[in-house]
Amino acid sequence: MTKIMSPEELEQELRAIGAERYHDKHPFHKLLHGGKLNKGQVQAWALNRYCYQSAVPRKDAALISRSHDREIRRDWVHRILDHDGYGEEEGGIERWLVLTDGLGLDRDYVVSMKGALPATRFAVEAYVNFVREKTLVEAIASSLTELFASRLIAVRLDALRRHYPWLQAGLGYFEARLSQAPEDARFAFEWAYEHARTREDQELVARALISKCDILWAQLDALYFAYVEPGWPPPGAFQPES
Amino acid sequence: MTKIMSPEELEQELRAIGAERYHDKHPFHKLLHGGKLNKGQVQAWALNRYCYQSAVPRKDAALISRSHDREIRRDWVHRILDHDGYGEEEGGIERWLVLTDGLGLDRDYVVSMKGALPATRFAVEAYVNFVREKTLVEAIASSLTELFASRLIAVRLDALRRHYPWLQAGLGYFEARLSQAPEDARFAFEWAYEHARTREDQELVARALISKCDILWAQLDALYFAYVEPGWPPPGAFQPES
Repeated sequence: MTKIMSPEELEQELRAIGAERYHDKHPFHKLLHGGKLNKGQVQAWALNRYCYQSAVPRKDAALISRSHDREIRRDWVHRILDHDGYGEEEGGIERWLVLTDGLGLDRDYVVSMKGALPATRFAVEAYVNFVREKTLVEAIASSLTELFASRLIAVRLDALRRHYPWLQAGLGYFEARLSQAPEDARFAFEWAYEHARTREDQELVARALISKCDILWAQLDALYFAYVEPGWPPPGAFQPES
Repeated sequence: MTKIMSPEELEQELRAIGAERYHDKHPFHKLLHGGKLNKGQVQAWALNRYCYQSAVPRKDAALISRSHDREIRRDWVHRILDHDGYGEEEGGIERWLVLTDGLGLDRDYVVSMKGALPATRFAVEAYVNFVREKTLVEAIASSLTELFASRLIAVRLDALRRHYPWLQAGLGYFEARLSQAPEDARFAFEWAYEHARTREDQELVARALISKCDILWAQLDALYFAYVEPGWPPPGAFQPES
């Protein structure tokens, strides 16, 4: 029971967590990918998801600020550059805003996050704080949802192209992530495996992944409640035009 | 008394702080730049200063992790890349290790920081924590010692070349900083001026600069005490060969 897992066993355990808890299983994503959402609901998804995208560089910088190991900092920093952009490169946050532009949302409104659900912001800040406060192994393990991301992104790209043709111009974000996510996941898994030296540490890795799945899932619960069923956006939140 | 300062007035106030408190005035630097230190003392300086160099990317990542403004993150991240290196670029920490190599210090020993003075480590971590915990304006203002750095670096490069010819191969760090520091200082000053909206905020900017000067000064006091006069390295600290 307390025997240390091999890399294969740990990966299998993490994949079992993903199979049960990753947000590709969430009913909101099933509606999104099945072409069942109207434009207002897709708008609500995109402007809430902006909160998450825009927090990612803060989360990754928090992780770098905690590492005394130059090698991991040198690797991890590309995640900040991928999202914020650097020099000529526009970055993922800018690409996400191209998506919200394509949905007819005002850019200042999206960036202000004034229309985002409070529950979204709470979940996103919980992620930043998790990375700030937990051990470095847990912080890194919380990125391991990327083990499951590329399949979800591929499914989503296909679904969005088919069901929401008016979104076409805004899909650059997902196209870039298709190649970024698998490399990042492999690096993080190997680092976590190497630094989780006991069975207890490995359990922390698994629990960090569960926490991250919870953070992603909670965002979709809030979207579903506000914009699908019963459809009660809280006071001040984005109201789709009817 | 509570009138807001113009950019020129604030810069003048900051330069007055530098004139009184920046560590170019410290007796240890006067010895270093006057060619009055022996090799063991230069070794002690370089291996203690490594602690500071190696903490800079953690400090800058902490700053980035606190900013919700993508523009400042996009600018500030180059400081991490400058120090840690990125891809083919070796970075300032690696260049500092070339300097300690040139001094005949074992690289693992330097990186382990086991020989560094505890007072150095306390001062360096005080800097990282200052940036983590104070307001973003204060965090950014604490970098403003770079207003004074390029003159010090130019003086130092010249002095080290003249007085310590055996250091020649290790001076790449300073050569790179000659061009980096002035640009960084200008950007940080302008940002701080723009975001310190009241006289009280401007006083915080000035006090942040004083705190940073204290952090740099304390490191040289500790070096002087341990390796010059009375010359009492604490238990466990680096002992030059006599």
